[in-house]
Amino acid sequence: MGFLFLNHSIISIESARIGVRDLSLLRGYGIFDYLRTHQGKPLFLTEYLQRFYSSAEKMGLKIPLNISEIPSIIEELLQRNKFEESGIRLVLTGGESNDAFHPGTPNFYILVEPFHHPSQSDYEHGIKVLSKEYGRFMPEIKTTNYLPVVYFRDELKEQNAVDVLYHQGGQVTELSRCNLFYVKNGIVLTNEVGILKGVTRKKVIEIIEKHFPLEITSFTLKDLYEADEVFLTSTTKKVMPITQIDQQKISSGEVGKISRELYEMFWKLCDAHVDQLTTVR
Amino acid sequence: MGFLFLNHSIISIESARIGVRDLSLLRGYGIFDYLRTHQGKPLFLTEYLQRFYSSAEKMGLKIPLNISEIPSIIEELLQRNKFEESGIRLVLTGGESNDAFHPGTPNFYILVEPFHHPSQSDYEHGIKVLSKEYGRFMPEIKTTNYLPVVYFRDELKEQNAVDVLYHQGGQVTELSRCNLFYVKNGIVLTNEVGILKGVTRKKVIEIIEKHFPLEITSFTLKDLYEADEVFLTSTTKKVMPITQIDQQKISSGEVGKISRELYEMFWKLCDAHVDQLTTVR
Repeated sequence: MGFLFLNHSIISIESARIGVRDLSLLRGYGIFDYLRTHQGKPLFLTEYLQRFYSSAEKMGLKIPLNISEIPSIIEELLQRNKFEESGIRLVLTGGESNDAFHPGTPNFYILVEPFHHPSQSDYEHGIKVLSKEYGRFMPEIKTTNYLPVVYFRDELKEQNAVDVLYHQGGQVTELSRCNLFYVKNGIVLTNEVGILKGVTRKKVIEIIEKHFPLEITSFTLKDLYEADEVFLTSTTKKVMPITQIDQQKISSGEVGKISRELYEMFWKLCDAHVDQLTTVR
Repeated sequence: MGFLFLNHSIISIESARIGVRDLSLLRGYGIFDYLRTHQGKPLFLTEYLQRFYSSAEKMGLKIPLNISEIPSIIEELLQRNKFEESGIRLVLTGGESNDAFHPGTPNFYILVEPFHHPSQSDYEHGIKVLSKEYGRFMPEIKTTNYLPVVYFRDELKEQNAVDVLYHQGGQVTELSRCNLFYVKNGIVLTNEVGILKGVTRKKVIEIIEKHFPLEITSFTLKDLYEADEVFLTSTTKKVMPITQIDQQKISSGEVGKISRELYEMFWKLCDAHVDQLTTVR
C-alpha cells in the first residue's frame, strides 16, 4: 500500500489508473523528475521543481498546479508514506489523445518510493559501466524516454555493470541517468553539451570551483580511458567513482582521492541544506 | 464509447486503465503495432502480428496470448465498434515495475479506431515533409518511442508539413511513421538499414520487382533533392508522393508517374488480398 497525488488529490496507489489512450502509453510522450530526501527532508526541491516545470514547458505540456502548490503536497505524501528516506517521482503524461498523435490534458502524479543508498562497497571499489553508441533526443529535457537503458538491463546484469555510458560521433555525453566527470593531472573536467544538466552535477561543480581547477570541455572515450579518475554524479548515486568502462580499468582500478573527497564534501552540503530547511521552519 | 480488448477481455474504453507504475509511463518502455482494414477486413494481418510478436520478443516482453488467438478477438472488436474502416492498434506496455527500471507483467491491449484515408488532394499534389537530424534507437523494433515527431507537431502544422524525415551522419533513414523510396532515371531506389521494415514497404517492393528496376541502397538528402520522384509507403498513407522537403521542391514539384502507378497497383493488391480472405471463408 501507499499513497500518491494524482491530478487533484491524494489517493492509494492501487486505485490510481491512467487511460489507455494516454500519449505516454501510445507514443512515449511524457516527462518526469526525481529527487530524494536527505534526513527525511526533500533535498534541493526548488531546483528539481524548476527543472520539471521547464521540461513541461519545452514539451508543450501544462502542469495543472502552480509550482508553489507542490511542496506542501510532497510534505503530506512523505508524512503518509512514512519511509525512512524517500525518492520523490513527479510524472506528467502526454494526456489522452483522440488521434494518437496530439497531446490531450496531461495526467500529473507524484509518487513517493522508499529510497535506498547505493551499497558502501560501490563507493569503496567504484562501479563498472558499459559504453553504448547512442544520442538522446533533446537530452536537456527530462523526458520518460529511457528505453535504451531498460533494453540493456540483462547485459548490464551479466556484465556486473551499473549503467550505460552514451557516446556518439566520438563524443561522450552522459550516462543514462548520471552526468560524467574525470580527473587528469589534478584538473577536474566535465562537459555541458548533449546532456541533461543534473542538479547534483550543478552542486558538485560549485564545490569543485572552490577546491580544484575545473575545466568545462568535451571529451572522448579515450580521454576517459586515460584519466586518473572518472566519477559520475546523480540524485541517487551522489558522487560515485567509475573504475571500469567495458573491459578497460581506469588508472589503477582503485577509487581516486578527488572522487572520495568530493563525495564527502557533497554529503556535508546535503547536511547543511536540510539543516537550514529545519532552521527556517 | 467504444470497446477494446485488455489483457483477458473486451471492455469499454472508458473503463480501461493502466497502473501509474507501468514502465511505459515511467520509462517509455513499450511496443505497439498498427494495421487497418480494407473493405472492412484486416489487411495483411499475419504480417503485422508477426512483427508485433517479434518486437515483443526483442524487447524481452511477453504477450499474454498466443498469436493464433488474436484474429478472432480483432474480428469481434470490429463487429462491436462498427466503423466503416478501422485502424487496429495493438499495444504492449512494459508492465508495472517495483523499481521503475525492471519490466513487470506487461499490459496488452487492442484498440479499434475509425480509419480515415488521407485527403485526395494529398495524393494529387503530394505532401511536404521536414528533415530532422535524428537516429532512432533500434529502429527495427516498433517501440512506442515517437517522442520526436510529437515534439515537432506545431512546427509541422506551421510549415504545412505532414511528417518528419530523419537523417543522421549524412544518411537518410526513414520518416517518423513511413519508409522512403525515390525514382531516378527510371530506377526505383530504397534503403534497408536503420529503418523499421514496413509491411506496406514489403508489399510495394514486391510490386516494384515485377514492373520496374529496383535498387536497395543507401542515400542522402542530396539524392532526394535531385530525384525525379520521391514517395513514402505506410499503413495509413499507402503510397504517398512527397513533392517538397523543407523548402526544396522535388523535380517539377508535381506528382510523378511511377508514384501514381504504384499507388494504383498497391490498391489493387489490397483489393485482391481481402477478396481472397472473403473467398476462403
